[in-house]
Amino acid sequence: MNPAELARFSVNQMTVRQLSLPELADACAALGVAGVGLWREPVRRYGVRAAAKLVRDAGLTVTTLCRGGFLTATDPVERAEALGDNHAAIDEAAALGTDTLVLVSGGLPAGSKDLRGARERVADALAVLAPYAAERGVRLAIEPLHPMYASDRCVVSTLAQALDLAERFPAHQVGVTVDTYHVWWDDQAPAQIARAGAAGRIHTFQLADWTTPLPEGVLNGRGQLGDGAIDMRQWRRRVEAAGYSGPIEVELFNERLWARDGREVLAETAQRFVDHVIR
Amino acid sequence: MNPAELARFSVNQMTVRQLSLPELADACAALGVAGVGLWREPVRRYGVRAAAKLVRDAGLTVTTLCRGGFLTATDPVERAEALGDNHAAIDEAAALGTDTLVLVSGGLPAGSKDLRGARERVADALAVLAPYAAERGVRLAIEPLHPMYASDRCVVSTLAQALDLAERFPAHQVGVTVDTYHVWWDDQAPAQIARAGAAGRIHTFQLADWTTPLPEGVLNGRGQLGDGAIDMRQWRRRVEAAGYSGPIEVELFNERLWARDGREVLAETAQRFVDHVIR
Repeated sequence: MNPAELARFSVNQMTVRQLSLPELADACAALGVAGVGLWREPVRRYGVRAAAKLVRDAGLTVTTLCRGGFLTATDPVERAEALGDNHAAIDEAAALGTDTLVLVSGGLPAGSKDLRGARERVADALAVLAPYAAERGVRLAIEPLHPMYASDRCVVSTLAQALDLAERFPAHQVGVTVDTYHVWWDDQAPAQIARAGAAGRIHTFQLADWTTPLPEGVLNGRGQLGDGAIDMRQWRRRVEAAGYSGPIEVELFNERLWARDGREVLAETAQRFVDHVIR
Repeated sequence: MNPAELARFSVNQMTVRQLSLPELADACAALGVAGVGLWREPVRRYGVRAAAKLVRDAGLTVTTLCRGGFLTATDPVERAEALGDNHAAIDEAAALGTDTLVLVSGGLPAGSKDLRGARERVADALAVLAPYAAERGVRLAIEPLHPMYASDRCVVSTLAQALDLAERFPAHQVGVTVDTYHVWWDDQAPAQIARAGAAGRIHTFQLADWTTPLPEGVLNGRGQLGDGAIDMRQWRRRVEAAGYSGPIEVELFNERLWARDGREVLAETAQRFVDHVIR
């Protein structure tokens, strides 16, 4: 593993959530990892200003902040709260010096069966948030989640749907997150990556592998690169062919990885990245 | 609940798998249920000829036999075995007097990351099986399964993919299964239902509701009608608008339903069908 092979590697904080923010910064420095994707909850616990100073002093690039969104409420109070929370997320992204806020749309409100209506409410919210974000140098990256999350987490299930939403706004305001875990099964995804790339709307590219059996609740079973069914190298080539040359973030939610030593997991992840994505 | 409201209702055997085949036939007679979807494993345990006589004597229509498929092996011996097993499934369907064999394509072979290649092998197998089935009065109904099964169970994840495969063959040989559980999240599904219906390729229509959290392994958490996120009435109207007027099979894999009295579950399911699908 030579340093050039890690040039585009970014570790999402959730991959090694057992590490504190200072431990993560140290571990990145030791390995020569230059990029991190951060999550709002641990950043807020540490303090947004303190976190911004820490990553700046460590020379780390914050490739994304995860995540805003959850914009599907029908109740006016809940809706106003969600918009307020997303304004805060945009401010946090700007404070951390990242240009990209990942958005997960949210699921169906309790008792609702109206996917289409929920997707429209996401569009309405984007119209409020996108200009606010752009004024602060932050792009919104709509993340389609795997269809298994459609009811309870994210009504945007495909890259095509995410782009249909994004294209209502300028590309520097709203684009998409391409995450292999969520799109690998979709035979339309390669064409949609080309569509996104041509418009400059691939705002971040994230990786996790697909392994089975899925755990209860299907949240924390994302596979280490190389352990599953996804041809990582092929997806990297697809986003590159679409014009994307930015950071590649590895975001694993995995109970087994979280139970291990965080530095060891980071080193393994970097090595897997080189072996399964780059070489 | 009047008898006319149950005219199109069919209970898939898996919904009440705690009932033996004679118990199922009795329970159907008691409720005025005229259709059953059968599964190969319990039918073979009971004996195919005996099962055929039982359902015939009970006046039941066998709406489908579930299931053939698993046609993605690369190993020649495994592939030959799979074709042999599917020939047997077709013979069983003909013996039971049903015109429809549901096919689940199979997942990726161990170690493979080649979804496209696996889908092509399904097409190759259909070319062998479809004429054999047609000679016996049996139609093959390719069932796209939810994308969460793409690696380990079914590389055909959308109605569009299923139709792309089916359209290589005459409609009376190969069509599709529309199952709400598998397609409800897909904003392309309504257009694909229209495409399938226009070509006479909706060979069966199945229902289950989408409930969360999903259980480990994501197999046995299909929701009772009305308990989840799917607007059943709307999907019925869509398949009807596409020209489908056949049986509607309720197929629930659900540990909680299996733990209850089977007759009670059948009665509840019939009532839910009337309340959430028909009225």
